[in-house]
Amino acid sequence: MIKVGIVGGTGYTGVELLRLLAQHSEVEVDVITSRSEAGMRVDELYPNLRGHYPGLAYSEPDARRLGNCDAVFFATPHGVAHALAGELLEQGTRVIDLSADFRLQDADEWANWYGQPHGATELLTQAVYGLPEINRDAIRQARLIAVPGCYPTAVQLGFIPLLEQGLLDTKRLIADCKSGVTGAGRGAKVSFLLAEASESMKAYGASGHRHLPEIRQGLDRAAGSDVGLTFVPHLTPMIRGIHATLYGHLTREPEDLQALFEARYRDEPAVDVMPPGSHPETRSVRGTDICRLAVHRPGDGDTVVVLAVIDNLVKGASGQAIQNLNLMFGFDEMLGLGAAALMP
Amino acid sequence: MIKVGIVGGTGYTGVELLRLLAQHSEVEVDVITSRSEAGMRVDELYPNLRGHYPGLAYSEPDARRLGNCDAVFFATPHGVAHALAGELLEQGTRVIDLSADFRLQDADEWANWYGQPHGATELLTQAVYGLPEINRDAIRQARLIAVPGCYPTAVQLGFIPLLEQGLLDTKRLIADCKSGVTGAGRGAKVSFLLAEASESMKAYGASGHRHLPEIRQGLDRAAGSDVGLTFVPHLTPMIRGIHATLYGHLTREPEDLQALFEARYRDEPAVDVMPPGSHPETRSVRGTDICRLAVHRPGDGDTVVVLAVIDNLVKGASGQAIQNLNLMFGFDEMLGLGAAALMP
Amino acid sequence: MIKVGIVGGTGYTGVELLRLLAQHSEVEVDVITSRSEAGMRVDELYPNLRGHYPGLAYSEPDARRLGNCDAVFFATPHGVAHALAGELLEQGTRVIDLSADFRLQDADEWANWYGQPHGATELLTQAVYGLPEINRDAIRQARLIAVPGCYPTAVQLGFIPLLEQGLLDTKRLIADCKSGVTGAGRGAKVSFLLAEASESMKAYGASGHRHLPEIRQGLDRAAGSDVGLTFVPHLTPMIRGIHATLYGHLTREPEDLQALFEARYRDEPAVDVMPPGSHPETRSVRGTDICRLAVHRPGDGDTVVVLAVIDNLVKGASGQAIQNLNLMFGFDEMLGLGAAALMP
Amino acid sequence: MIKVGIVGGTGYTGVELLRLLAQHSEVEVDVITSRSEAGMRVDELYPNLRGHYPGLAYSEPDARRLGNCDAVFFATPHGVAHALAGELLEQGTRVIDLSADFRLQDADEWANWYGQPHGATELLTQAVYGLPEINRDAIRQARLIAVPGCYPTAVQLGFIPLLEQGLLDTKRLIADCKSGVTGAGRGAKVSFLLAEASESMKAYGASGHRHLPEIRQGLDRAAGSDVGLTFVPHLTPMIRGIHATLYGHLTREPEDLQALFEARYRDEPAVDVMPPGSHPETRSVRGTDICRLAVHRPGDGDTVVVLAVIDNLVKGASGQAIQNLNLMFGFDEMLGLGAAALMP
Repeated sequence: MIKVGIVGGTGYTGVELLRLLAQHSEVEVDVITSRSEAGMRVDELYPNLRGHYPGLAYSEPDARRLGNCDAVFFATPHGVAHALAGELLEQGTRVIDLSADFRLQDADEWANWYGQPHGATELLTQAVYGLPEINRDAIRQARLIAVPGCYPTAVQLGFIPLLEQGLLDTKRLIADCKSGVTGAGRGAKVSFLLAEASESMKAYGASGHRHLPEIRQGLDRAAGSDVGLTFVPHLTPMIRGIHATLYGHLTREPEDLQALFEARYRDEPAVDVMPPGSHPETRSVRGTDICRLAVHRPGDGDTVVVLAVIDNLVKGASGQAIQNLNLMFGFDEMLGLGAAALMP
Repeated sequence: MIKVGIVGGTGYTGVELLRLLAQHSEVEVDVITSRSEAGMRVDELYPNLRGHYPGLAYSEPDARRLGNCDAVFFATPHGVAHALAGELLEQGTRVIDLSADFRLQDADEWANWYGQPHGATELLTQAVYGLPEINRDAIRQARLIAVPGCYPTAVQLGFIPLLEQGLLDTKRLIADCKSGVTGAGRGAKVSFLLAEASESMKAYGASGHRHLPEIRQGLDRAAGSDVGLTFVPHLTPMIRGIHATLYGHLTREPEDLQALFEARYRDEPAVDVMPPGSHPETRSVRGTDICRLAVHRPGDGDTVVVLAVIDNLVKGASGQAIQNLNLMFGFDEMLGLGAAALMP
Repeated sequence: MIKVGIVGGTGYTGVELLRLLAQHSEVEVDVITSRSEAGMRVDELYPNLRGHYPGLAYSEPDARRLGNCDAVFFATPHGVAHALAGELLEQGTRVIDLSADFRLQDADEWANWYGQPHGATELLTQAVYGLPEINRDAIRQARLIAVPGCYPTAVQLGFIPLLEQGLLDTKRLIADCKSGVTGAGRGAKVSFLLAEASESMKAYGASGHRHLPEIRQGLDRAAGSDVGLTFVPHLTPMIRGIHATLYGHLTREPEDLQALFEARYRDEPAVDVMPPGSHPETRSVRGTDICRLAVHRPGDGDTVVVLAVIDNLVKGASGQAIQNLNLMFGFDEMLGLGAAALMP
Repeated sequence: MIKVGIVGGTGYTGVELLRLLAQHSEVEVDVITSRSEAGMRVDELYPNLRGHYPGLAYSEPDARRLGNCDAVFFATPHGVAHALAGELLEQGTRVIDLSADFRLQDADEWANWYGQPHGATELLTQAVYGLPEINRDAIRQARLIAVPGCYPTAVQLGFIPLLEQGLLDTKRLIADCKSGVTGAGRGAKVSFLLAEASESMKAYGASGHRHLPEIRQGLDRAAGSDVGLTFVPHLTPMIRGIHATLYGHLTREPEDLQALFEARYRDEPAVDVMPPGSHPETRSVRGTDICRLAVHRPGDGDTVVVLAVIDNLVKGASGQAIQNLNLMFGFDEMLGLGAAALMP
């Protein structure tokens, strides 16, 4: 049994950690912090947790108390982990950061996209990008994890098998992504009201989105060279789920694409390659840490279409964070993550 | 480890049994039947189950094979359990029927509402109404369980504390109920298309609904006399959930109503009485076997309002069925039912 | 052609006035005010209006400019019309107030529910309650209209035929109401985010809601005596629509209830009594100024159930405001309000 | 005043014709046919039409009676217009076909995709493709109109300005399209139930969809050569709306793309080019005949992204059909189509 802390526990990724950890046999949540809700019980804010964390209440962040934990999750806006991670690491606490703070290796690029200097460049060398499907061994040894973003997880898992084999024209990759509204967090913004966001579909950030450099960094690594990527996210009228539709142009006649995907992910517990001709639905992964994929080649032409779905709050955030924790502490990789998706 | 069978496994309550039993440590699903889909793997129809029941496929119903199970669930339209239950009981298999076949003790009333003769009147004496909150001991001994309907579960749990204490004018009870669309099952009907049922609200069956006699039977028992109940169900644009809003008029000044509800349900693992002033949301029980209740007395007048929410597919069907199974086989009553609700 | 102004044009009732008035042949929108968005074109905020009001932009409220209009709508939070209405009336401008400011005749009760003194008690005698179905002649002569609230419109129209005939036990009226989220306005509140409010149902204000005294005032008038009403509103996962389910107990055997409703509303252009056995859907009035009603008497017992649906933003607000305007200026009562509901 | 008939009036495009024509000052609906619902009043099936078509009922299709109309709309499955159109044209009645029967000029390709022989090849030469933005003059003279499909309308309007100028690599066009569920019609299919289709997103037909040849035919015409198009439609959890996200690669440095789009559509009453940086929402065209467009060039690279939204039942079907009718009979092109979108 290990003790964990959660910094920033009122947002959707924080409470999703609580929901998932309630099923985890080896973890006890010792501290959960929130400046705005300090003193409030977690189940007052989230009645779905009634009965699961009887005494747990939000407290002010306190580095010493967090430092008593074996691991601390950051479910915070960007910048917070920069400020606190170093102090925790010094106390021997492992840090699993769900924010964007350590995802980009290039601190200048980070500063560009987030409009402020990178606050912990000295930690970048030890930060491990927490995508188990490419970094499992490094994660096992890591003390500081940058949990991938939701879009980056879906897009990378979909493109990687093709890029690793050098099959695509890497200068013209397209990722058309659709996300449920929880991707925007729990902030009170007019455009995410039910009255505004339901019964409608729209793109956003078509000219540039903060997840773009993270995705590009991951695809560059898989391709072994700089890729050209057009990434257009869309706001979809649903609570959870990301559907990534990926387009690439073949540069040579491939072997069997289906077999390629199946081989690449055969031993991956969190990736499910569906049978030929499938169209994965986001609801088929609702609440779970699974990424389901299907690969199509329309009209046997030179365009490959990959369909990838995840739950943005689970495989795209809190579930993947726990997958990392499990690897870091030697537990079964999917411990606590085994529930079937809620469907219908 | 016990072996169970599921008759009628393609509908929503059948697949919900599979989803929940995937987390149950003492149950193995041995057989699942479907006339229409015999031969198809369950995870072809329900991809959320991929990885959970690797070899499981639908088969034609076969009484001998079902009779090898320790228990068999019926997740079927009415009439099917009438035909098969007796044969299974003779083989020593316990029967947990999620349909309406054994819910009404009065076979004539059953025939009236279902438009066909009752097909197994000889089994009525041994059928136990599977609402643990009123029948726990009988359930433990039972060999044939009639799992309560979804509306009847919510309405009974809400009214029982008041009726047992004789506090209400029993001739003027009102149950205004709102249900998500899965309450109507998985049949392909125009009025349940997303294009027809979303972004709208309507009542149905305002002049009479099949759940009415079952609710009345339960309230009569709690009140110790015949009650007068007006029950109006409404179709609500959501997938899961029942919200029952119950109105009763006090016949005398009660003690503390909040304390009454808390006392009645203190030891009930599947009932959660919320703090005074609460308004339970259906999403707070999504995917779980919990009924959350709140009691109000507007303006300190003589009308009591009880708000009760359940997930119609879990506490209103498959979860309650498993709760019954657990009691029948001596497992912890909530074994396999402990996950927190998916929220948001 | 008359000139109108709109005070508070960024909220849902303000923009709904614009949407509806774009089809009105006798009205020109001359001024629309907003403190927060002054200077912004209306079609920047509401792209659905592109092409309809080419030059129209929000301006700071200015009593002189508004006073040039023949009529001014207030689509504002409570208190604003109190402050401005008098000045406009003095300039000869008619005032149609969609807020709660002039709905209650009792200024003390208003102060109680709104937590501040009534700011224009001197205008109360000339304020006409703008429910055409009971007040048509007074509206025609009025200079100051209090447009009824959304819940009060639905509940009054449903109960009035029964109360006017003295058929009900007036001490035990129940109004169980379900509203889409636009009833809460366009404010950025967490609980109305799509992620929070969709896929769920909940009651609110079960112990008391601001619309209660307005409804009671209207029902008292219809009944000719003080009524006892329990009113429980529910938040429903849809954008628009109110469904009122009304329960009353008969005190004597009535004539044909269907005929009673049909007779009461035969000449009402905005009320549609549906055939016996109907269950009106909120979507059947989406975007329109119609209230559809159905009356049921379950099991021929002594309880009457009335089902009433309106679009909260139209018959429950902006449409009814225009209906009042039409009456005040001698236009056809439904001018500009004739479109069929958007369905599906 | 002209008289029109509607063949197949129970589906979504049929009833949408009724909804829109109720606002049309020059059209009277004389006949509406349905084999399955003959004898039923239209407002029994669609209560939103109560009061709009008092006596109108469905009748069996009858070529003579239809032949008395000035124009007949076909809102039917494919094949029906093939069988009837010729007879009507001979009687001098103009035919506006909303089905796919006359959209493809190549009868063999039609037969391939629809799995049956083309039933009226002799009429193909006089069939005019009813996209006013490219065919206005021909439409004015036409006697037989093939109303474009919903996806083809959005995709063509988005790509045409770029293709006409020869700016794109025509071999690698990508159209990632998202549609509300009414695109699938009113048939009772499990996968379109609210319980199945809401709270989820999925692609379909990724390997080939019937709208592909129609889109390709249109893009070929605009490009002046055969294009290579990858088209992936997605089912989106909303009732109405299509969002097309179009990707093309520039072959040369263009002039100002925004100016190009604005110039191309300056005089088009049904196309609205939004300001630079816009992201059109489908709800901004709900219920209207408008296509809203925005053009982006992410990172000033060589990929152009066009965002196009329409209401699939209006500009994608019935509204466009009426736009064609207006042109054919010399009415104002947008007569009856001027209402602002319902938003929120």
